[in-house]
Amino acid sequence: MNQAMYTSSIPVFKQMLNSLQVILSKAEEHAAAKNIDANVFLQARLSPDMFSLTRQVQIAADFAKGVAGRLAGAELPEFADDEASFADLRGRIAKTLAFIENLTPAQFEGAESREITLRPGTPKEKTLIGSAYLLSYGLPQFFFHVATAYGILRHHGVELGKRDYMGQY
Amino acid sequence: MNQAMYTSSIPVFKQMLNSLQVILSKAEEHAAAKNIDANVFLQARLSPDMFSLTRQVQIAADFAKGVAGRLAGAELPEFADDEASFADLRGRIAKTLAFIENLTPAQFEGAESREITLRPGTPKEKTLIGSAYLLSYGLPQFFFHVATAYGILRHHGVELGKRDYMGQY
Repeated sequence: MNQAMYTSSIPVFKQMLNSLQVILSKAEEHAAAKNIDANVFLQARLSPDMFSLTRQVQIAADFAKGVAGRLAGAELPEFADDEASFADLRGRIAKTLAFIENLTPAQFEGAESREITLRPGTPKEKTLIGSAYLLSYGLPQFFFHVATAYGILRHHGVELGKRDYMGQY
Repeated sequence: MNQAMYTSSIPVFKQMLNSLQVILSKAEEHAAAKNIDANVFLQARLSPDMFSLTRQVQIAADFAKGVAGRLAGAELPEFADDEASFADLRGRIAKTLAFIENLTPAQFEGAESREITLRPGTPKEKTLIGSAYLLSYGLPQFFFHVATAYGILRHHGVELGKRDYMGQY
């Protein structure tokens, strides 16, 4: 049995999604303590043409869901992008965690050589085998959005440290 | 032969270090075009208690070097943290790339179960097996510093897109 794609994806997604939960809780507490509208943080961004915190979290969750689910050959649940509070975002992450925790190692058997097509039917269509899909596409994308969510909150004064980003390992 | 630790580390480090090279070149061109002192960007940070761009790049390079080298059981070259220009930072990345490109798949044989100790001799000492060291520690750290370098430059107005971050995959 070769379940390397399971052990290379599910534990790291879980680790970082759980760290995002803590980061979002600390941001919410910070907003409450300073009497700042939560939307100031939820809509914050590092640059006018970058995504807001809310969107960064949604996309991070979607990469965890999509990458894990495609490697497993599972049907992907659809989540509406309608989160409007820190509690909503934590709920989105919780739903994502529930989905990926329900995937079994056996579903990842052979996933390293399974072909996965990005942006099918578009001019940017690109097919990768599972191992490249995870390592050269999925993880770089996922970590980008987690680190950017952290960076937005640090930039806006929330007291966080690298330990909050790294989570439990 | 099980060289999964090679294929799970070296290609992704190369991809992202090469993308950092492009990102730094674009930042340097931006600074020149706008007649802005390069140090404005090199010393820029997202928060007063976060590291500068220069330090983020140095740390990203050091994680690529350290994680790849430790998995391979290779001696790590030491690079002084004395970079003072965009050209210096590109040189640091080039030296790092040269080191990791010189590592062979055979050196990673069995690396997934090799024990690697973080912060040896300190209260934070922690031992992980190679696969956890790469996936739960090395890659999250490495991507953090690459994404933060990108975020610093985007925040300071350099025209970059996700494609620059993702590099060639």
